[in-house]
Amino acid sequence: MNKELGKMEKIVSFCKRRGLIYPSSEIYGGFAGFWDYGPLGVELRHNIKQHFWKKFVAGKNEIYPISTSIVMSPKVWEASGHISGFADPTDDGKQFNVMFKTSIGAGEEATISYLRPETAQGMFTNFKNIIDSFHPKLPFGLAQIGKAFRNEISPRDFLFRSREFEQMEIEYFVRENDWEDVFESWRKEMHEWIKEIGLPKESIHELEVSKEGRAHYSKRTIDFEFDFPFGRKELYGLAYRTDFDLRNHSVASGINLEYFDEDSGERFTPHCIEPTFGVDRTVLAILVSAYTEDELGGEPRTYLKLAKHLAPVRAAVFPLLKNKPELVSRAREVYLILQKEIPNIQFDDNGNIGKRYRRQDEIGTPFCITIDFDTLEDDTVTIRDRDTGEQKRIVITDLKEAII
Amino acid sequence: MNKELGKMEKIVSFCKRRGLIYPSSEIYGGFAGFWDYGPLGVELRHNIKQHFWKKFVAGKNEIYPISTSIVMSPKVWEASGHISGFADPTDDGKQFNVMFKTSIGAGEEATISYLRPETAQGMFTNFKNIIDSFHPKLPFGLAQIGKAFRNEISPRDFLFRSREFEQMEIEYFVRENDWEDVFESWRKEMHEWIKEIGLPKESIHELEVSKEGRAHYSKRTIDFEFDFPFGRKELYGLAYRTDFDLRNHSVASGINLEYFDEDSGERFTPHCIEPTFGVDRTVLAILVSAYTEDELGGEPRTYLKLAKHLAPVRAAVFPLLKNKPELVSRAREVYLILQKEIPNIQFDDNGNIGKRYRRQDEIGTPFCITIDFDTLEDDTVTIRDRDTGEQKRIVITDLKEAII
Repeated sequence: MNKELGKMEKIVSFCKRRGLIYPSSEIYGGFAGFWDYGPLGVELRHNIKQHFWKKFVAGKNEIYPISTSIVMSPKVWEASGHISGFADPTDDGKQFNVMFKTSIGAGEEATISYLRPETAQGMFTNFKNIIDSFHPKLPFGLAQIGKAFRNEISPRDFLFRSREFEQMEIEYFVRENDWEDVFESWRKEMHEWIKEIGLPKESIHELEVSKEGRAHYSKRTIDFEFDFPFGRKELYGLAYRTDFDLRNHSVASGINLEYFDEDSGERFTPHCIEPTFGVDRTVLAILVSAYTEDELGGEPRTYLKLAKHLAPVRAAVFPLLKNKPELVSRAREVYLILQKEIPNIQFDDNGNIGKRYRRQDEIGTPFCITIDFDTLEDDTVTIRDRDTGEQKRIVITDLKEAII
Repeated sequence: MNKELGKMEKIVSFCKRRGLIYPSSEIYGGFAGFWDYGPLGVELRHNIKQHFWKKFVAGKNEIYPISTSIVMSPKVWEASGHISGFADPTDDGKQFNVMFKTSIGAGEEATISYLRPETAQGMFTNFKNIIDSFHPKLPFGLAQIGKAFRNEISPRDFLFRSREFEQMEIEYFVRENDWEDVFESWRKEMHEWIKEIGLPKESIHELEVSKEGRAHYSKRTIDFEFDFPFGRKELYGLAYRTDFDLRNHSVASGINLEYFDEDSGERFTPHCIEPTFGVDRTVLAILVSAYTEDELGGEPRTYLKLAKHLAPVRAAVFPLLKNKPELVSRAREVYLILQKEIPNIQFDDNGNIGKRYRRQDEIGTPFCITIDFDTLEDDTVTIRDRDTGEQKRIVITDLKEAII
């Protein structure tokens, strides 16, 4: 366990040193529970969200993306049960509501509301809008990527339990009778996702949440737990929320939130399956899985074994020697060709080539491309594989294909 | 003027009807100053941010993206002057601080802090982190896209004056002597941006902000104003912030925020040029510019004249008739080919072809592609231009090139 906790310390310090993640407000001593993403962290997080978008939004015609406000009417949180029930016990046993409260408007017109503790409610409150604008047929879903906030009593474990975090959530509406099949198919898709982002299968564990452990509205919940260095903890969730949310909002708002089936003429409240993915927990699980110490060519090295579509830098282009202008300018040309077609190509001519390899390994760059004297003769370059350190010679025109 | 305000009403109602933008918490009567983006609004906004990213972040090696927390230590806002000075007068003449306040942590350890009213400060507080991780040489910049919040006393004019909004900001650090040249080059780049997103030149006006009108730290500010239907108002800003922010944070935190020039051995505090772009104001200016009522083929129509790289749907694919399975399945094939390569392709076989054209025109889809009986013979399709309504026949293999 000590060794595992040592790994966390290494990762936190690595993230700061190499510009992935910094403590928020660090020059003022930090601010517990808040983190800033540096340039490489922004790219990693972007790639994760991009993959979610491709897979679950662009890749599915029946899923509608929305992006709702973080601050909503307090009536939303009354109806959802968050004002009365979204609380954790403090040390002295009192219930402490973990929603951040703020006052909106000035003077007598001021209203107390909250920073959303989940993105889900913004989807339920827009259910009717989506129906009216797009006339979708069941099953269909809403998807949202956005920030949420919880006033955690003890924020800890780096990105794991923070007070500001980002979620990728889907509310998928179905006929009541279909819930079990749809639940099962989302369960499969979540495992697919986990595989696609490169988390090892053996570090993922399904937890069937017992009735006592489930939110009161849920008839079934599976937690996807991950073996973090600080223990086995929830990474993702899949919940069958029944028709609880739409019904509640319908009663509280007085607005009919039923679905009308044009074919059968029926009106009814759809039921809802909710797959939830935390962005920051995904970042953390990926870092924990990818962070590797090994030996290469007899020397110790640290590297990030990231899936190539997630790596902050897809490929780095080097001139073999930085004091040979003909190599540098040819390397710049190759860099510019790749950069036009593929995001996140880097040029580096700092230090010797061995150091450059190590620097790129450390941030998980899958490919290093070196321009040497042979390049000037025959338009070939070396391309080096991050994991094995092996180098191959290929022609420049095949580079794009090799790294995409 | 009345006609212009009528245009705003039309745009607001169009945005809701077609699924671009909805009032937040609408089923509860709305919540002043907050808006939700529907599926088409999400795509439009995404395309705008994507263009910013390509142009100013990926396209510039010296600009480092970061993404900092919305809630930061209150010490940040003390040092920046926002706690003492970021206020608007209320009706009865009192100064009202427009930062949203919230309490972080539980019990005696609770701290009052604020939702950031601008993304800029998160960049100044990370200045040293970027220097330490990346060793950039001047000039270099930090860029951030993210939400900010202001407790506007009277939110109004749709997305223009809202309480929750998104910014795209750059803090560009230079030697003091260079500020005028760099200011000038950013001014040009901002005009380029304006052109690239399709805002008409004649609706943009530079306002040289007088000393009295400028923030106290700024030695020069240009507002880029736009002719909104409700008047000429600030769209973007370009400010020379001097070394005010870094110096303040350095004094308040006790951390040295100087830059060390390796070549000359000098240490000094860089000066800062700040181009700021509001995402939501950009959305609004684009909608106002693009919303067009004209006649086509003797019939009135409404359409969005959007730049094609910003349109929520890049192209729509139709079978000429929906009850001919051979047309429908060929159209589906064409749709799938395009969808693999180009984001936001839509398939539509609802209603007659004239109605489908109108629906796509209304949301600004640049191209409609129709599969008819000739397609089955010779693999050609018609491609229709949104603005002119003109149709050309082209072969399927040329489609990608035609719409990209």
